[in-house]
Amino acid sequence: MAQPAIILVRPQLGENIGKAARAMLNFGLTDLRLVAPRDGWPNPDAGPSAAGAGAVINNARVYDTVEEAVADCTHVYATTVRDRDMPKPVATPKESALQMHTLISSGERPAVMFGPERSGMTNDDIALADTILTVPINPEYGSLNLAQAVILVAYEYFQNASDTPAYQPAHPEGLASKDDLVGLMEHLEGALDQKGFFKSEGRRAAQRRTLRNLLQNAEFSSQEIQTLRGVVKALARSRPE
Amino acid sequence: MAQPAIILVRPQLGENIGKAARAMLNFGLTDLRLVAPRDGWPNPDAGPSAAGAGAVINNARVYDTVEEAVADCTHVYATTVRDRDMPKPVATPKESALQMHTLISSGERPAVMFGPERSGMTNDDIALADTILTVPINPEYGSLNLAQAVILVAYEYFQNASDTPAYQPAHPEGLASKDDLVGLMEHLEGALDQKGFFKSEGRRAAQRRTLRNLLQNAEFSSQEIQTLRGVVKALARSRPE
Repeated sequence: MAQPAIILVRPQLGENIGKAARAMLNFGLTDLRLVAPRDGWPNPDAGPSAAGAGAVINNARVYDTVEEAVADCTHVYATTVRDRDMPKPVATPKESALQMHTLISSGERPAVMFGPERSGMTNDDIALADTILTVPINPEYGSLNLAQAVILVAYEYFQNASDTPAYQPAHPEGLASKDDLVGLMEHLEGALDQKGFFKSEGRRAAQRRTLRNLLQNAEFSSQEIQTLRGVVKALARSRPE
Repeated sequence: MAQPAIILVRPQLGENIGKAARAMLNFGLTDLRLVAPRDGWPNPDAGPSAAGAGAVINNARVYDTVEEAVADCTHVYATTVRDRDMPKPVATPKESALQMHTLISSGERPAVMFGPERSGMTNDDIALADTILTVPINPEYGSLNLAQAVILVAYEYFQNASDTPAYQPAHPEGLASKDDLVGLMEHLEGALDQKGFFKSEGRRAAQRRTLRNLLQNAEFSSQEIQTLRGVVKALARSRPE
């Protein structure tokens, strides 16, 4: 049955990957993806702490980059503790769960990303996310560990399985896959490079992130991405054809 | 402020008591009670795993029996995984959270009991409970540990307080004015005209409408419109500056 993917971005301890798998399976989630796990993969520390959720561990898929891990997804949530002041909508675990049920019933493929234990995700990781998922927490003490964050998301997804959701996807025909979106981003960045858009190497990363956030948040359909690639191609010509 | 007591009945590992304290404080709960902790109290293993929630550990009260631990409470929930077939109402974490808020606002004093790690509570322990609190879980794999059960209860209690923040729009500063939006549309159309993007006068109107819809529906902020005008300007150059 279709379900959200759980993506651990650069997880540090194998034990925590095992605990996250256990947290997932308690609430029926099995699509575990790992981006560049610090200690490699497979990790012998993961199995014991998975406590019977070994199948989730054994079927985990490993990727080098966030872009690859989300390539087949159409709506990505980035779990953060602190407010990142990013230009993206913010949702609680419950709101996200309701949205994800609606998205899945419309054929979309949602995923939830979780950052490394100590540092959380970088702003570059988050640039590909559609929505910031934040757990409302004691403002004087926020100390959720990785498996706890995973279990709250998985719990809400399971609890809200039969609720009637209110969230309406923007494109009844479906959002573009992240693969298509990254294709547009890279096409545009290449064209801008050739035209000298990026003023300096120092500002390049920030300009690139601004553009990626902007394109990401626009929630383009697959057809719209094709249109925009035609636009970039035409504009990038030296002269009219 | 009045809040539910969290009662750990015969907890085994000090580490799990620390993790439960951490789970509680994440969601603002501080009234921790221990009934006959197996390894005595204080327990040096509890502090490190509490990760900054030491005050909850230090203020924990210890009792010999469940009866003493719940003596000042008026409504007790017993957390169980399996159905105990007890003649008591059964509630989910969310239903319990809503009830507890109502009870507290009426001056009642609720508590939630959790059993030992391996065995759970005995039927005698549960006899003093008003309500069975059960977490709906994957029927093929239920493996919640003590701290996870505590965090789900504490989480629901916090989420269902009336002051929990909700959904935020992507652009708190507001969407771009239509004036700005049309400026971008006209700028892009002019640049595309120069590059020969519009194949024929016949198709021009439809292509233009597609682009305008796409830009309109992306819900750009004013700042994003400025960024995109810079992008169009750079791409439309004949050569790098």
